[in-house]
Amino acid sequence: MIEVEVKARAKKDTQEKVAALGAKPLMVENHHDLYFNSPLRDFKVSDEALRIRIKEEGARLTYKGPKLDRETKSRLEWTVKIDDPLQMEQILLGLGFELSAEVRKRRTKYSFEDIVIALDEVEGLGSFLEAEAVGDDANWEMQRGRVLSVLTRLGLDEPIRSSYLELLEEKRNCQTHAQID
Amino acid sequence: MIEVEVKARAKKDTQEKVAALGAKPLMVENHHDLYFNSPLRDFKVSDEALRIRIKEEGARLTYKGPKLDRETKSRLEWTVKIDDPLQMEQILLGLGFELSAEVRKRRTKYSFEDIVIALDEVEGLGSFLEAEAVGDDANWEMQRGRVLSVLTRLGLDEPIRSSYLELLEEKRNCQTHAQID
Repeated sequence: MIEVEVKARAKKDTQEKVAALGAKPLMVENHHDLYFNSPLRDFKVSDEALRIRIKEEGARLTYKGPKLDRETKSRLEWTVKIDDPLQMEQILLGLGFELSAEVRKRRTKYSFEDIVIALDEVEGLGSFLEAEAVGDDANWEMQRGRVLSVLTRLGLDEPIRSSYLELLEEKRNCQTHAQID
Repeated sequence: MIEVEVKARAKKDTQEKVAALGAKPLMVENHHDLYFNSPLRDFKVSDEALRIRIKEEGARLTYKGPKLDRETKSRLEWTVKIDDPLQMEQILLGLGFELSAEVRKRRTKYSFEDIVIALDEVEGLGSFLEAEAVGDDANWEMQRGRVLSVLTRLGLDEPIRSSYLELLEEKRNCQTHAQID
């Protein structure tokens, strides 16, 4: 499976425009994400991610491979439901992985055709919109065009390829620089 | 949690003796186990194990740390239920782990006080008995004494510390030597 995903900073009128597009509200979720780094290679450099996501309905372990192109966040993704995130964390620590960051957000999900639109309020970062579709080797470039066009129709024309994890790190670095200046 | 476990090769009368001990039959399970090795350190040398176990009732991912003593197979163990063993395998392969072996067995489980006794028919190896209890830092040595005494009462006085994985490898190595001779 290929996850085809674009992201942009949301504007004041983004929620209105999502409704005007005809997207159907699905649910609101609270995410608590634990990110791990590998002892073998730095995932920041290799562009991979290993995450435990804890939601009200349960938890998942997800591995994301490096991005497949330069415009979107499309990548190979594998995921399993797990019954106990604390045991999963202990397994990863035992195997040599390190907890590198935690991200908390409130996500409002909409469906539009076969695309999932998410409006995210990220603790410490602000509001973002993500549009996501799934594809395979044969059709992921077409799916990429479709999610990019959703962004354009919402008036959000600056896609961000950085993850929330990377954005939080950038913010932290800037704050450190500001303190030094 | 500390897994306190002993194992021995079963004899012809072992099943009878387990019944005579008053152990209560629990269930019969078919196990298909996938073992993985780490790209970081050889688990054969570091005495660790990473396993996906697939049973009729569902699958689990388990990590076992190095053994804590010389007589039993007691060790730290962490485990989670997973909904999709194939996705879990893909995650482990993506992270750099390698599938090192597969073990299939039929396990008949009994309970005796707070000890679980398992009679295993292992494909390619034969019959074994395992006795297992859980302990913590404070009581695991006492639990170790209790599982060892079960073995003695069943007339099995040669505990084996090797895993089925190690026994299968030893067997393979011996067959290779026999062919060379």
